[in-house]
Amino acid sequence: MKTPVTVLGLGAMGTALARAYLAAGHPTTVWNRTPGRSPELDAVRAATAAEAIAASPLVIVCLLVDDTVRSTLDGIDLSGKTVVNLTNSTPDQARATAERVSAAGAQYVDGGIMAVPAMIGGPAAFIFYSGVPEAFEKHRADLSVPARPEYVGADPGLAALYDIALLSAMYGMFGGAQHALALVGTENVPAGPFTERFLFPWLTAMLGSLPPIAEDLDNGPGDTAGSNLAMQAASFDNLTETSIAQGVDPMLVAPMGELLRRAVAAGHGDGDLAALIGVLRTPAE
Amino acid sequence: MKTPVTVLGLGAMGTALARAYLAAGHPTTVWNRTPGRSPELDAVRAATAAEAIAASPLVIVCLLVDDTVRSTLDGIDLSGKTVVNLTNSTPDQARATAERVSAAGAQYVDGGIMAVPAMIGGPAAFIFYSGVPEAFEKHRADLSVPARPEYVGADPGLAALYDIALLSAMYGMFGGAQHALALVGTENVPAGPFTERFLFPWLTAMLGSLPPIAEDLDNGPGDTAGSNLAMQAASFDNLTETSIAQGVDPMLVAPMGELLRRAVAAGHGDGDLAALIGVLRTPAE
Repeated sequence: MKTPVTVLGLGAMGTALARAYLAAGHPTTVWNRTPGRSPELDAVRAATAAEAIAASPLVIVCLLVDDTVRSTLDGIDLSGKTVVNLTNSTPDQARATAERVSAAGAQYVDGGIMAVPAMIGGPAAFIFYSGVPEAFEKHRADLSVPARPEYVGADPGLAALYDIALLSAMYGMFGGAQHALALVGTENVPAGPFTERFLFPWLTAMLGSLPPIAEDLDNGPGDTAGSNLAMQAASFDNLTETSIAQGVDPMLVAPMGELLRRAVAAGHGDGDLAALIGVLRTPAE
Repeated sequence: MKTPVTVLGLGAMGTALARAYLAAGHPTTVWNRTPGRSPELDAVRAATAAEAIAASPLVIVCLLVDDTVRSTLDGIDLSGKTVVNLTNSTPDQARATAERVSAAGAQYVDGGIMAVPAMIGGPAAFIFYSGVPEAFEKHRADLSVPARPEYVGADPGLAALYDIALLSAMYGMFGGAQHALALVGTENVPAGPFTERFLFPWLTAMLGSLPPIAEDLDNGPGDTAGSNLAMQAASFDNLTETSIAQGVDPMLVAPMGELLRRAVAAGHGDGDLAALIGVLRTPAE
């Protein structure tokens, strides 16, 4: 028999997870604080969180926020369970949950889902996991049901850290693209053709330079193929000035100008990307 | 005989341009305000800008900043010339230069170089051009020598606008990646493997969603495949909180949280990316 699984929380993501386990033939028990959510699910419905947790060795938590995780698990005996928490949280929240869950007798694994609900069960979705290695290995096959699992370490905060790092990178890329589309939109340039012909190929080409840059970060600075930070800082004003002149708020791009100036002021005018990362990790004065 | 070409300015980029024309067999005249720059170039050296301009029908200007373009061309007769200005400038600066150059008798084309000097003459480089269409067509073959030409319209400000839009997008993407690498670096995760295994494939996948989103922008909002803006705004605090907790300055990511909040406050909580672009084009109160 496949591992019985309990899913706590039937928001859009919890429902997608429960559906994936049902489709894969796992005995599945669900619970939601507000009863009656996702009535189409053909799962066992528990009346309380404690009853739902008692039903399965593997308990998947997918609630709205960290506070709800705390209040839901509070006071429940978790002896012998594996608790996998996929609720959006920060690394420090994950670490605190790990302590409480361990104290209640369970092995804790935290996860960060790199997908929207519609992608669950599909090939592109993956989930970062971190926490007790034995618990992850024991349930590796079970955890492969909703999405490809990527285990990143024993520190329970790591999955959230990787998750948030990738989200930050995504928001940076989309923010840059939004600014670009807002700029050309001021002259009525259609977004679709501009993106297909220029923006997408350009970002694809620039993205290709990222892996060698990251290699350099680990191995010490290599050759600066592009312009050094002093040159970039000097020409950056054109970006913010043009945005303002065209009526586009420079809020998404201006901070990079500030970071470049801060790097040059700290003596990194000859440096490259590695120096910027160092400045980000230095508290501002 | 190939078109004689004059290059004004022998910085790293001007030197690369002159070298490309020499290699392609164009009679090439160069001038630099400070004599003696780039002594290895086998080009005709003019003593003054006026003398350099008189030598060729096609004059390529590649100086450090817009002010230098103004002072260099001031008072020189440009009758019958085609002036192609590749100096970094804003759209408004390009439009002002176009007026002055036209008044002095020349046809004006502005350009934005999407390459670093080392890429000139190679397959990946391209240059945006805008301005007098007949002048561009007349010299299309000549302008194809240093890099692939992309003509984007008669308004002389468009080349700079496209250029700055793509640079903004690049800085956004690199900024997001820098923040991500700074974050995982706080837990001593090596940048190279993290980038190869996660950051690069993730950004590649997310980048693939950009062309359909841009299509939607032109055709009105389609389905929101991901989370709507209200959900994104609500979960965004995890990013900034995690950055601060890990000792990484949130300066590059925090403005996106502010933009999301501003969009929700303006009634776009159910909206998607298109709404954010609209908010960027709305003056803040």
